[in-house]
Amino acid sequence: MKSKEEEYGIDYGRVVILTEKQTLRIIPLGGVAEAGKNMTALVMGEDILIIDVGLAFPDEELLGIDAVIPDFSYLVEHKDKIKGIILTHGHEDHIGGVPYLLEEFKAPIYGTKLTLGLLASKLQEHKMDSSELDLHEVKPRGEVDIGIFQVEFIRVNHSIADGVGLAIKTPLGMVVHSGDFKFDHTPVDREVIDLHRFSELGEKGVLVFLSDSTNADRPGYTESEQVVGENLQEIFREVKGRIILTTFASNVHRIQQALEAAALSGRKAVVVGRSMIHSMQIAIDLGYLKVPDDLLMVEEVKDEIESEHCMVLTTGVQGEPISALTKIAFNEHESIRIREKDTVVLAATPIPGNEKLVTQTVDGLQKQGAKVIYEADSGVHVSGHASKEELKTMLNLVKPRYLIPIHGEYRKLVHLADLAQGLGIPRERIFITEPGDVLEFTSEGATASGKIAAGKVLVDGLGVGDVGNVVLRDRRQLSQDGILIVTLTLDKKGNIKTGPEMMSRGFVYVRESEELIEEAKEKVSRALEKHEGKTTDWSTLKTTVRDVLGKFLYEKTRRRPMILPVIMEMEKK
Amino acid sequence: MKSKEEEYGIDYGRVVILTEKQTLRIIPLGGVAEAGKNMTALVMGEDILIIDVGLAFPDEELLGIDAVIPDFSYLVEHKDKIKGIILTHGHEDHIGGVPYLLEEFKAPIYGTKLTLGLLASKLQEHKMDSSELDLHEVKPRGEVDIGIFQVEFIRVNHSIADGVGLAIKTPLGMVVHSGDFKFDHTPVDREVIDLHRFSELGEKGVLVFLSDSTNADRPGYTESEQVVGENLQEIFREVKGRIILTTFASNVHRIQQALEAAALSGRKAVVVGRSMIHSMQIAIDLGYLKVPDDLLMVEEVKDEIESEHCMVLTTGVQGEPISALTKIAFNEHESIRIREKDTVVLAATPIPGNEKLVTQTVDGLQKQGAKVIYEADSGVHVSGHASKEELKTMLNLVKPRYLIPIHGEYRKLVHLADLAQGLGIPRERIFITEPGDVLEFTSEGATASGKIAAGKVLVDGLGVGDVGNVVLRDRRQLSQDGILIVTLTLDKKGNIKTGPEMMSRGFVYVRESEELIEEAKEKVSRALEKHEGKTTDWSTLKTTVRDVLGKFLYEKTRRRPMILPVIMEMEKK
Repeated sequence: MKSKEEEYGIDYGRVVILTEKQTLRIIPLGGVAEAGKNMTALVMGEDILIIDVGLAFPDEELLGIDAVIPDFSYLVEHKDKIKGIILTHGHEDHIGGVPYLLEEFKAPIYGTKLTLGLLASKLQEHKMDSSELDLHEVKPRGEVDIGIFQVEFIRVNHSIADGVGLAIKTPLGMVVHSGDFKFDHTPVDREVIDLHRFSELGEKGVLVFLSDSTNADRPGYTESEQVVGENLQEIFREVKGRIILTTFASNVHRIQQALEAAALSGRKAVVVGRSMIHSMQIAIDLGYLKVPDDLLMVEEVKDEIESEHCMVLTTGVQGEPISALTKIAFNEHESIRIREKDTVVLAATPIPGNEKLVTQTVDGLQKQGAKVIYEADSGVHVSGHASKEELKTMLNLVKPRYLIPIHGEYRKLVHLADLAQGLGIPRERIFITEPGDVLEFTSEGATASGKIAAGKVLVDGLGVGDVGNVVLRDRRQLSQDGILIVTLTLDKKGNIKTGPEMMSRGFVYVRESEELIEEAKEKVSRALEKHEGKTTDWSTLKTTVRDVLGKFLYEKTRRRPMILPVIMEMEKK
Repeated sequence: MKSKEEEYGIDYGRVVILTEKQTLRIIPLGGVAEAGKNMTALVMGEDILIIDVGLAFPDEELLGIDAVIPDFSYLVEHKDKIKGIILTHGHEDHIGGVPYLLEEFKAPIYGTKLTLGLLASKLQEHKMDSSELDLHEVKPRGEVDIGIFQVEFIRVNHSIADGVGLAIKTPLGMVVHSGDFKFDHTPVDREVIDLHRFSELGEKGVLVFLSDSTNADRPGYTESEQVVGENLQEIFREVKGRIILTTFASNVHRIQQALEAAALSGRKAVVVGRSMIHSMQIAIDLGYLKVPDDLLMVEEVKDEIESEHCMVLTTGVQGEPISALTKIAFNEHESIRIREKDTVVLAATPIPGNEKLVTQTVDGLQKQGAKVIYEADSGVHVSGHASKEELKTMLNLVKPRYLIPIHGEYRKLVHLADLAQGLGIPRERIFITEPGDVLEFTSEGATASGKIAAGKVLVDGLGVGDVGNVVLRDRRQLSQDGILIVTLTLDKKGNIKTGPEMMSRGFVYVRESEELIEEAKEKVSRALEKHEGKTTDWSTLKTTVRDVLGKFLYEKTRRRPMILPVIMEMEKK
């Protein structure tokens, strides 16, 4: 039987080896086998190149955590070798970790105009002065030397403007990085993905391709952003009352199309919500968003906002608890009240994990009397990532010898691997990785050669990495059954002088549980009587309190609050 | 312009009024504008009839809560009038609240054989003796008198066997309740939904129809359960290695089909996981599941379980943390290790809110090397609820004068209302409700006439309703930033004798934060010095400690732990 590779006659792996001596190491540090915090390192000799420094939003089990960033310890250890950081586009999962990385070391940063604009705004939030940084604006088809690496930027389409893929010439051969991409043959800014360049690279020979896997499980093609514009225009034309529209603040093209649809239907646009105003201002300043003269940026325009000839553009497309739309949905917004004829358009799909928040918002808006347009099949959202047919086309254009699926949970990487194998790339040349896996490429071939420290670093307030398993385990227990604090004072001989007193939080409502608490005190007193005068070993006493109370409370309530005995010794005078 | 009603010529609302004097009240107590805890009360004169007593699983924000049940206070207040409880089928969201209701009062319970079998098992879990209860087994097309209400049971298809809808004859007219239903023209047990009966009722005239709204947003038809059987057979035929299959333990028909597919492909079935074994045992005992002679119910059959000619049937289809499949996925199961050739089939879709748990399980299984078949489009799951076309057919068969969409979040009820309006039922005869809304029907017409106490009652361990907003708010704060306990002792004059000492849980890892804690103690001491000897008003001192510490810790960490000052007075001797 012929192999698929022979069968289709495409030569995956026509690679020009420029040097036989050196080893190229590619190390995904995040974004593989997980969603978010995308980051990859290329290591060759004395040079390290970093691609993207993203953050991830915490899963529910990471209680109280604000963000998750990659473990930078390998990079910190080798910080003298780091020649540069490339950002492929301005989404949080690609640039959100930069402020934290810059706390560790500085390095030149490369990105397109909008990407650097969004980065500057992010650094400002962290009270960092971007004018002190070595920022380099790059353009598609532009080239820069970053240490041993010669990097070319290639236009791609995505759900944010100004995204790029990368062609990285190394002494061992060409490494191509797709960035987050889709094919959009009719993009809003007319900047079509540079398939010619990817094709040329494939023709010359590509050693390794790192490819977006987000939609590798999705059949067919991803639709053009233009489709959203057409559907918005149709909706805006038919709707009689006021329109409230929300989308990702960074999706400049969708916002542009909403503004155009508003203008065409004779509506004035009013922007509400700080992060939306802020993002739009950056996009306007940098020339990525063209705004009609009479667009009203402030929300204190009572007359306009009350008018039926108005489109309110706002935040909250993911049901974020403190966003404007969520407040509107629960009738808590300071200036906007839903009226019977209002139509609310949610121009995005929920990010996995946000489904419930979004549907609660939809329910709330409907209860207030609004018509809500929100589902994927209502045509007001298209994905920013390539589906199967685009991925196949890309793989056949780039014709890599080796493939590293990136940007996706484990199953997405498996889907892209299956897809690539079906096209004829042998399985042994496809690497499914987890953060920290080291892939070694030489003129002899490629191997997975061990692992460096990598994983999740938790950000909680100003603390980076200081919340670990112990703290999280405590938070979990506290969140489930609360805490019971037992205080008592002993004299030097170990006789109880005051207490036990009990205080609880998150366990039972004390005023309604007086009987339970009295009985619990009784139990503790009786248990301690046995020790009275005999021991001053407080740890024994604490263990006794914990055991007796834990058992008693579980019997009575089937709950297991954290029990914290506080014993104080009374000084004799 | 003609109304839709005239246009299609269907007369929604040919109703026979039997009495002009009485008022019928229908009160949805749960399951409307929310998912789960389905319950409805019919009230007429001195008679109350309850339909279903379900529970709901808690949203993430209900920290530590085990289950949510409807507020029974209206029923408890009128318990003398309660003539009976009807259970339409045996799912948790229809029977799970019964044990809690029975703590309040007893009443005759009506249900089909399997439904009562599952109820008995549930009561046993709650250590209740079902032999002391007044349980009545009913059959489709059977009729019972429950107070003033004459109730007939009508076969419907659903994702559990033995489900029924209801025709309730009242002095005012016929009330029809759909139960949870779909059309399955080729059901596994050959018991096709009794469309003839629904049709006959419609012909005679139906006053009110309460209809399942779950899939009112889903176009087309819901596929037959048979499709799953065919697809399982195909998968089982093609797969060479061992198969591990999971589905809802209550979905007897799907389990039956999996067993048949196993037998056809020459595999022995091994059941693993307590709840799966337990559910199957009930279904076997009651004759709803036909099991091949050599089915192995125990998991301690090392040889069989290791064989490639084996299908392991197990729990964990929703990624439940302590289920067998989850343990297998994380390589923590006592007897099952994933091998390269294993295929895992997840024959269900995630319940909203469980998406992440399920995908984590899939990722884990793939990392262990298993092939995983899990998506809706892989054909191993079909819904148990009617889609739009079935709902339209049902509405046109039943031809109700009034419609009450039930069983669905707010937006689902709106979808069904829109659908019904499109068929010609005037909007003013469709009632979108929330729990506790009272709908009044008389010979004059129907009105929404106020509200009774209704809502969520939280179950936490043995406590029913004792966890309220205060406790939940505390749990939330504790879960986010933990707790800091500050202890000190004062003498009678208000001089600090010992302390302040600090203890924290879930805030920072203390060993790595000694400096912070020392500085915090310093702050507290200095703040208290001002009061020293001057005040013995402890609440002032506590407020001081909270304010000073709260501000200091927020500045240093951007976290807001709960601060709990514990002040003890030293007795003089």
